[in-house]
Amino acid sequence: MATLEIPGAHGLALPLAAGEAIRLVNTFGSQVVDTWAIAHHDSTEYLSVEHTRRMIGNLFPRKGDFFYSNRRAKMLSLEEDTAPGRHDMLFACCDKWLYQHYGCAPGHRSCRDNFLEALFAAGFDAHLVPNPVNLWMNIPVDPEGRIDILPPVSRPGDHVVLRALVDVLVVFSACPMDVTPINGPDRTPRPVHAEILPRA
Amino acid sequence: MATLEIPGAHGLALPLAAGEAIRLVNTFGSQVVDTWAIAHHDSTEYLSVEHTRRMIGNLFPRKGDFFYSNRRAKMLSLEEDTAPGRHDMLFACCDKWLYQHYGCAPGHRSCRDNFLEALFAAGFDAHLVPNPVNLWMNIPVDPEGRIDILPPVSRPGDHVVLRALVDVLVVFSACPMDVTPINGPDRTPRPVHAEILPRA
Repeated sequence: MATLEIPGAHGLALPLAAGEAIRLVNTFGSQVVDTWAIAHHDSTEYLSVEHTRRMIGNLFPRKGDFFYSNRRAKMLSLEEDTAPGRHDMLFACCDKWLYQHYGCAPGHRSCRDNFLEALFAAGFDAHLVPNPVNLWMNIPVDPEGRIDILPPVSRPGDHVVLRALVDVLVVFSACPMDVTPINGPDRTPRPVHAEILPRA
Repeated sequence: MATLEIPGAHGLALPLAAGEAIRLVNTFGSQVVDTWAIAHHDSTEYLSVEHTRRMIGNLFPRKGDFFYSNRRAKMLSLEEDTAPGRHDMLFACCDKWLYQHYGCAPGHRSCRDNFLEALFAAGFDAHLVPNPVNLWMNIPVDPEGRIDILPPVSRPGDHVVLRALVDVLVVFSACPMDVTPINGPDRTPRPVHAEILPRA
Protein backbone atom coordinates (compact mmCIF):
# COMPACT_ATOMS: atom_id res chain seq x y z
CA MET A 1 0.00 0.00 0.00
CA ALA A 2 1.44 3.34 -1.06
CA THR A 3 2.29 5.80 1.68
CA LEU A 4 1.02 9.32 1.15
CA GLU A 5 2.85 12.32 2.52
CA ILE A 6 1.11 15.49 3.64
CA PRO A 7 3.85 18.13 3.80
CA GLY A 8 3.95 20.36 6.88
CA ALA A 9 1.65 23.38 6.45
CA HIS A 10 -0.15 21.77 3.49
CA GLY A 11 -3.35 19.81 2.92
CA LEU A 12 -4.72 16.78 1.10
CA ALA A 13 -8.22 15.59 0.17
CA LEU A 14 -8.97 12.03 -0.79
CA PRO A 15 -12.02 9.79 -1.16
CA LEU A 16 -12.78 6.91 1.17
CA ALA A 17 -15.45 4.44 0.15
CA ALA A 18 -17.76 3.09 2.86
CA GLY A 19 -15.80 0.43 4.74
CA GLU A 20 -12.38 1.73 3.78
CA ALA A 21 -10.16 3.36 6.37
CA ILE A 22 -7.14 5.62 6.55
CA ARG A 23 -4.23 5.28 8.93
CA LEU A 24 -2.79 8.70 9.65
CA VAL A 25 0.65 8.72 11.26
CA ASN A 26 2.02 11.64 13.29
CA THR A 27 5.52 10.87 12.00
CA PHE A 28 7.33 13.42 14.16
CA GLY A 29 4.76 13.33 16.98
CA SER A 30 4.39 17.10 17.21
CA GLN A 31 2.06 17.86 14.32
CA VAL A 32 -1.59 18.84 14.64
CA VAL A 33 -3.76 17.70 11.73
CA ASP A 34 -7.07 19.45 11.08
CA THR A 35 -9.49 16.86 9.69
CA TRP A 36 -12.78 17.15 7.83
CA ALA A 37 -15.14 14.67 6.15
CA ILE A 38 -17.75 15.52 3.54
CA ALA A 39 -20.37 13.16 2.13
CA HIS A 40 -19.14 12.20 -1.32
CA HIS A 41 -22.51 12.54 -3.02
CA ASP A 42 -23.89 15.61 -1.21
CA SER A 43 -21.52 18.29 -0.02
CA THR A 44 -24.20 19.81 2.24
CA GLU A 45 -23.67 16.86 4.60
CA TYR A 46 -20.40 16.94 6.51
CA LEU A 47 -18.78 15.83 9.73
CA SER A 48 -20.06 18.21 12.40
CA VAL A 49 -18.19 18.46 15.69
CA GLU A 50 -21.13 20.23 17.31
CA HIS A 51 -23.43 17.30 16.47
CA THR A 52 -20.71 14.82 17.42
CA ARG A 53 -20.23 16.37 20.89
CA ARG A 54 -23.98 16.02 21.46
CA MET A 55 -24.19 12.45 20.22
CA ILE A 56 -21.12 11.13 22.12
CA GLY A 57 -21.79 13.31 25.21
CA ASN A 58 -18.18 14.44 25.44
CA LEU A 59 -15.91 17.30 24.35
CA PHE A 60 -13.20 14.84 23.30
CA PRO A 61 -13.47 11.89 20.91
CA ARG A 62 -11.96 8.59 22.06
CA LYS A 63 -11.12 5.27 20.45
CA GLY A 64 -14.38 3.55 19.47
CA ASP A 65 -16.34 6.79 19.09
CA PHE A 66 -18.17 7.77 15.93
CA PHE A 67 -18.03 11.15 14.25
CA TYR A 68 -21.53 12.29 13.21
CA SER A 69 -22.70 14.44 10.35
CA ASN A 70 -24.83 17.58 10.54
CA ARG A 71 -27.74 15.18 9.91
CA ARG A 72 -26.70 13.08 12.90
CA ALA A 73 -25.58 10.15 10.74
CA LYS A 74 -22.39 8.21 11.52
CA MET A 75 -19.68 9.20 9.03
CA LEU A 76 -16.38 7.98 10.48
CA SER A 77 -15.25 5.84 13.39
CA LEU A 78 -12.09 6.43 15.42
CA GLU A 79 -11.06 2.82 15.17
CA GLU A 80 -7.52 3.14 16.55
CA ASP A 81 -5.77 5.83 18.52
CA THR A 82 -2.32 5.19 19.99
CA ALA A 83 -1.60 8.62 21.49
CA PRO A 84 -2.01 9.31 25.21
CA GLY A 85 -3.67 12.68 24.75
CA ARG A 86 -6.86 14.13 23.44
CA HIS A 87 -8.03 15.47 20.13
CA ASP A 88 -9.67 18.86 19.93
CA MET A 89 -13.20 19.56 18.69
CA LEU A 90 -13.53 23.08 20.14
CA PHE A 91 -11.47 25.40 17.95
CA ALA A 92 -12.13 26.68 14.46
CA CYS A 93 -9.28 26.00 12.04
CA CYS A 94 -6.62 28.68 11.74
CA ASP A 95 -7.36 31.17 9.00
CA LYS A 96 -6.00 34.35 7.44
CA TRP A 97 -7.85 36.42 10.03
CA LEU A 98 -6.12 34.64 12.91
CA TYR A 99 -2.68 35.28 11.37
CA GLN A 100 -3.72 38.89 10.76
CA HIS A 101 -4.71 39.05 14.45
CA TYR A 102 -1.18 37.83 15.32
CA GLY A 103 0.41 40.44 13.04
CA CYS A 104 1.74 37.97 10.44
CA ALA A 105 2.35 39.14 6.89
CA PRO A 106 -0.43 38.49 4.35
CA GLY A 107 -0.15 35.12 2.60
CA HIS A 108 0.63 33.07 5.71
CA ARG A 109 -0.64 29.55 5.02
CA SER A 110 -3.66 28.43 7.05
CA CYS A 111 -5.74 25.30 7.60
CA ARG A 112 -8.75 27.09 6.13
CA ASP A 113 -6.94 27.80 2.87
CA ASN A 114 -5.49 24.26 2.88
CA PHE A 115 -9.03 22.87 3.15
CA LEU A 116 -10.22 24.96 0.21
CA GLU A 117 -7.10 24.24 -1.89
CA ALA A 118 -7.33 20.50 -1.24
CA LEU A 119 -11.03 20.38 -2.14
CA PHE A 120 -10.46 22.31 -5.36
CA ALA A 121 -7.52 20.06 -6.24
CA ALA A 122 -9.77 17.02 -5.74
CA GLY A 123 -12.36 18.49 -8.12
CA PHE A 124 -14.84 19.69 -5.52
CA ASP A 125 -16.20 23.12 -4.73
CA ALA A 126 -16.63 24.42 -1.18
CA HIS A 127 -19.60 26.40 0.09
CA LEU A 128 -18.59 26.52 3.72
CA VAL A 129 -15.73 25.54 6.00
CA PRO A 130 -17.01 23.23 8.72
CA ASN A 131 -15.38 23.21 12.14
CA PRO A 132 -12.68 20.48 11.98
CA VAL A 133 -11.57 17.71 14.28
CA ASN A 134 -8.07 18.83 15.27
CA LEU A 135 -6.18 15.56 15.67
CA TRP A 136 -3.55 15.57 18.43
CA MET A 137 -4.28 19.20 19.25
CA ASN A 138 -3.90 19.69 22.99
CA ILE A 139 -6.62 22.07 24.18
CA PRO A 140 -7.39 21.34 27.83
CA VAL A 141 -10.40 22.87 29.55
CA ASP A 142 -10.43 23.68 33.28
CA PRO A 143 -13.50 23.48 35.57
CA GLU A 144 -14.26 27.17 34.93
CA GLY A 145 -14.38 26.53 31.18
CA ARG A 146 -11.05 28.26 30.53
CA ILE A 147 -9.27 26.91 27.48
CA ASP A 148 -5.49 26.51 27.20
CA ILE A 149 -3.30 26.05 24.10
CA LEU A 150 -0.47 23.54 24.64
CA PRO A 151 1.98 21.47 22.56
CA PRO A 152 0.80 17.96 21.62
CA VAL A 153 1.56 15.07 23.98
CA SER A 154 1.64 12.62 21.05
CA ARG A 155 4.89 10.80 20.22
CA PRO A 156 6.64 10.09 16.91
CA GLY A 157 4.74 7.33 15.14
CA ASP A 158 1.49 7.76 17.05
CA HIS A 159 -1.38 7.15 14.69
CA VAL A 160 -5.14 7.02 14.31
CA VAL A 161 -7.28 4.85 12.05
CA LEU A 162 -10.42 6.53 10.74
CA ARG A 163 -12.91 4.19 9.08
CA ALA A 164 -15.61 5.49 6.75
CA LEU A 165 -19.21 4.44 7.42
CA VAL A 166 -20.39 6.06 4.19
CA ASP A 167 -18.65 7.28 1.02
CA VAL A 168 -16.77 10.40 2.05
CA LEU A 169 -14.12 12.81 0.99
CA VAL A 170 -11.67 13.27 3.87
CA VAL A 171 -9.56 16.41 4.02
CA PHE A 172 -6.43 16.83 6.14
CA SER A 173 -4.30 19.86 6.87
CA ALA A 174 -0.92 19.56 8.59
CA CYS A 175 -1.52 22.80 10.50
CA PRO A 176 0.76 25.70 9.46
CA MET A 177 0.63 27.36 12.91
CA ASP A 178 4.08 28.73 13.83
CA VAL A 179 3.02 31.44 16.32
CA THR A 180 1.53 29.40 19.19
CA PRO A 181 3.24 26.15 20.41
CA ILE A 182 0.36 24.03 19.12
CA ASN A 183 2.74 22.16 16.77
CA GLY A 184 5.40 21.71 19.45
CA PRO A 185 7.63 24.10 21.40
CA ASP A 186 9.78 24.80 18.32
CA ARG A 187 6.66 26.01 16.44
CA THR A 188 7.61 24.10 13.27
CA PRO A 189 5.03 22.41 11.01
CA ARG A 190 6.20 18.96 9.89
CA PRO A 191 4.93 16.31 7.46
CA VAL A 192 2.58 13.49 8.42
CA HIS A 193 1.94 10.26 6.53
CA ALA A 194 -1.10 8.24 5.61
CA GLU A 195 -2.16 5.01 3.98
CA ILE A 196 -5.52 3.73 2.83
CA LEU A 197 -6.65 0.46 4.44
CA PRO A 198 -9.06 -1.87 2.64
CA ARG A 199 -12.48 -2.84 3.94
CA ALA A 200 -12.19 -4.70 7.25
CA MET B 1 -40.62 50.80 22.80
CA ALA B 2 -42.74 47.92 21.49
CA THR B 3 -42.30 44.55 23.12
CA LEU B 4 -41.89 41.65 20.74
CA GLU B 5 -43.04 38.17 21.62
CA ILE B 6 -41.35 35.04 20.38
CA PRO B 7 -43.85 32.24 20.96
CA GLY B 8 -42.57 29.03 22.53
CA ALA B 9 -41.21 26.67 19.85
CA HIS B 10 -41.05 29.47 17.26
CA GLY B 11 -38.41 31.83 15.86
CA LEU B 12 -37.90 35.45 14.90
CA ALA B 13 -35.30 37.29 12.79
CA LEU B 14 -34.78 41.03 13.01
CA PRO B 15 -32.15 43.54 11.96
CA LEU B 16 -29.96 45.42 14.41
CA ALA B 17 -27.96 48.37 13.16
CA ALA B 18 -24.45 48.87 14.54
CA GLY B 19 -24.82 50.39 17.99
CA GLU B 20 -28.37 49.16 18.57
CA ALA B 21 -29.06 46.44 21.09
CA ILE B 22 -31.77 43.97 21.97
CA ARG B 23 -32.95 43.07 25.44
CA LEU B 24 -34.16 39.49 25.47
CA VAL B 25 -36.21 38.47 28.50
CA ASN B 26 -36.64 34.90 29.69
CA THR B 27 -40.16 35.69 30.82
CA PHE B 28 -40.86 32.33 32.46
CA GLY B 29 -37.21 31.65 33.31
CA SER B 30 -37.19 28.14 31.89
CA GLN B 31 -36.81 28.78 28.17
CA VAL B 32 -33.66 28.16 26.13
CA VAL B 33 -33.24 30.54 23.20
CA ASP B 34 -30.97 29.53 20.31
CA THR B 35 -29.38 32.70 18.95
CA TRP B 36 -27.60 33.51 15.69
CA ALA B 37 -26.22 36.67 14.08
CA ILE B 38 -25.47 37.15 10.41
CA ALA B 39 -23.73 40.14 8.84
CA HIS B 40 -26.47 42.17 7.20
CA HIS B 41 -24.57 42.87 4.01
CA ASP B 42 -22.78 39.53 3.52
CA SER B 43 -24.46 36.34 4.68
CA THR B 44 -21.16 34.40 4.43
CA GLU B 45 -20.05 36.19 7.61
CA TYR B 46 -21.83 35.03 10.75
CA LEU B 47 -21.40 34.67 14.50
CA SER B 48 -19.17 31.63 14.98
CA VAL B 49 -19.07 29.96 18.39
CA GLU B 50 -15.92 28.06 17.43
CA HIS B 51 -14.11 31.32 16.66
CA THR B 52 -15.62 32.95 19.75
CA ARG B 53 -14.38 30.17 22.07
CA ARG B 54 -10.89 30.68 20.67
CA MET B 55 -10.97 34.46 20.94
CA ILE B 56 -12.39 34.64 24.50
CA GLY B 57 -10.47 31.56 25.71
CA ASN B 58 -13.51 30.02 27.35
CA LEU B 59 -16.32 27.54 26.65
CA PHE B 60 -18.89 29.89 28.17
CA PRO B 61 -19.60 33.53 27.29
CA ARG B 62 -19.92 35.98 30.20
CA LYS B 63 -21.10 39.55 30.64
CA GLY B 64 -18.66 41.85 28.84
CA ASP B 65 -17.56 39.23 26.30
CA PHE B 66 -17.77 39.71 22.57
CA PHE B 67 -19.14 37.22 20.08
CA TYR B 68 -16.87 36.94 17.04
CA SER B 69 -17.61 36.16 13.43
CA ASN B 70 -16.06 33.43 11.30
CA ARG B 71 -13.66 36.20 10.19
CA ARG B 72 -12.73 36.91 13.80
CA ALA B 73 -14.49 40.28 13.83
CA LYS B 74 -16.57 41.43 16.81
CA MET B 75 -20.28 41.15 15.96
CA LEU B 76 -22.16 41.36 19.26
CA SER B 77 -21.35 42.10 22.87
CA LEU B 78 -23.03 40.45 25.86
CA GLU B 79 -23.64 43.77 27.56
CA GLU B 80 -25.93 42.56 30.33
CA ASP B 81 -26.68 39.15 31.77
CA THR B 82 -28.74 38.82 34.95
CA ALA B 83 -28.94 35.01 35.18
CA PRO B 84 -26.73 33.05 37.56
CA GLY B 85 -25.94 30.28 35.08
CA ARG B 86 -24.09 29.79 31.87
CA HIS B 87 -24.99 29.94 28.21
CA ASP B 88 -24.07 27.05 25.93
CA MET B 89 -21.81 27.27 22.87
CA LEU B 90 -21.18 23.53 22.50
CA PHE B 91 -24.32 21.98 21.04
CA ALA B 92 -25.74 22.18 17.55
CA CYS B 93 -29.33 23.40 17.44
CA CYS B 94 -32.02 20.74 17.60
CA ASP B 95 -33.13 19.55 14.18
CA LYS B 96 -35.44 17.05 12.52
CA TRP B 97 -32.75 14.38 12.74
CA LEU B 98 -32.51 14.75 16.54
CA TYR B 99 -36.29 14.35 16.93
CA GLN B 100 -36.13 11.38 14.55
CA HIS B 101 -33.38 9.96 16.80
CA TYR B 102 -35.76 10.38 19.78
CA GLY B 103 -38.59 8.64 17.91
CA CYS B 104 -40.81 11.73 17.51
CA ALA B 105 -43.31 11.93 14.68
CA PRO B 106 -42.22 13.78 11.51
CA GLY B 107 -42.98 17.51 11.58
CA HIS B 108 -41.79 18.15 15.14
CA ARG B 109 -40.69 21.78 15.27
CA SER B 110 -36.95 22.39 15.66
CA CYS B 111 -34.57 25.30 16.16
CA ARG B 112 -33.00 24.53 12.78
CA ASP B 113 -36.31 24.90 10.97
CA ASN B 114 -37.14 27.98 13.05
CA PHE B 115 -33.84 29.55 11.93
CA LEU B 116 -34.62 28.86 8.28
CA GLU B 117 -38.26 29.96 8.57
CA ALA B 118 -37.33 33.19 10.35
CA LEU B 119 -34.67 34.05 7.77
CA PHE B 120 -37.05 33.39 4.88
CA ALA B 121 -39.75 35.48 6.59
CA ALA B 122 -37.24 38.35 6.91
CA GLY B 123 -36.47 38.15 3.19
CA PHE B 124 -33.14 36.36 3.43
CA ASP B 125 -31.95 33.06 2.04
CA ALA B 126 -29.87 30.60 4.06
CA HIS B 127 -26.93 28.63 2.74
CA LEU B 128 -25.89 27.05 6.00
CA VAL B 129 -26.99 26.78 9.60
CA PRO B 130 -24.23 28.03 11.88
CA ASN B 131 -23.82 26.60 15.36
CA PRO B 132 -25.87 28.87 17.68
CA VAL B 133 -25.31 30.44 21.06
CA ASN B 134 -27.86 28.65 23.22
CA LEU B 135 -28.89 31.30 25.74
CA TRP B 136 -29.67 29.97 29.25
CA MET B 137 -29.02 26.40 28.12
CA ASN B 138 -27.44 24.51 31.00
CA ILE B 139 -24.80 22.17 29.60
CA PRO B 140 -22.14 21.58 32.27
CA VAL B 141 -18.87 19.86 31.42
CA ASP B 142 -16.99 17.72 33.96
CA PRO B 143 -13.18 17.38 34.19
CA GLU B 144 -13.27 14.32 31.90
CA GLY B 145 -15.05 16.33 29.23
CA ARG B 146 -18.40 14.62 29.83
CA ILE B 147 -21.36 16.79 28.93
CA ASP B 148 -24.64 16.83 30.84
CA ILE B 149 -28.07 18.17 29.79
CA LEU B 150 -29.91 19.97 32.61
CA PRO B 151 -32.83 22.38 33.10
CA PRO B 152 -31.94 26.10 33.07
CA VAL B 153 -31.03 27.80 36.35
CA SER B 154 -32.36 31.13 35.06
CA ARG B 155 -35.33 32.77 36.81
CA PRO B 156 -38.47 34.45 35.46
CA GLY B 157 -37.48 37.86 34.11
CA ASP B 158 -33.77 37.11 33.72
CA HIS B 159 -32.52 38.87 30.63
CA VAL B 160 -29.55 39.55 28.44
CA VAL B 161 -28.69 42.62 26.39
CA LEU B 162 -26.90 41.92 23.12
CA ARG B 163 -25.43 44.99 21.42
CA ALA B 164 -24.50 44.95 17.74
CA LEU B 165 -20.99 46.09 16.75
CA VAL B 166 -21.86 45.92 13.05
CA ASP B 167 -25.12 45.78 11.10
CA VAL B 168 -26.51 42.30 11.69
CA LEU B 169 -29.58 40.20 11.37
CA VAL B 170 -30.19 38.42 14.68
CA VAL B 171 -32.22 35.24 14.74
CA PHE B 172 -33.81 33.72 17.84
CA SER B 173 -35.56 30.41 18.38
CA ALA B 174 -37.48 29.66 21.57
CA CYS B 175 -36.33 26.04 21.53
CA PRO B 176 -39.14 23.52 20.85
CA MET B 177 -37.41 20.73 22.80
CA ASP B 178 -39.97 18.71 24.78
CA VAL B 179 -38.07 15.43 25.14
CA THR B 180 -35.09 16.39 27.32
CA PRO B 181 -35.54 18.73 30.35
CA ILE B 182 -33.54 21.49 28.66
CA ASN B 183 -36.57 23.83 28.81
CA GLY B 184 -37.35 22.93 32.40
CA PRO B 185 -38.48 19.75 34.18
CA ASP B 186 -41.99 20.03 32.68
CA ARG B 187 -40.50 19.98 29.16
CA THR B 188 -42.73 22.80 27.93
CA PRO B 189 -41.55 25.49 25.49
CA ARG B 190 -42.73 28.96 26.54
CA PRO B 191 -42.67 32.45 25.00
CA VAL B 192 -39.86 34.95 25.55
CA HIS B 193 -39.97 38.70 24.98
CA ALA B 194 -37.65 41.23 23.43
CA GLU B 195 -37.26 44.93 22.84
CA ILE B 196 -34.87 46.91 20.68
CA LEU B 197 -32.72 49.45 22.54
CA PRO B 198 -31.37 52.53 20.77
CA ARG B 199 -27.68 53.32 20.34
CA ALA B 200 -26.01 53.74 23.72
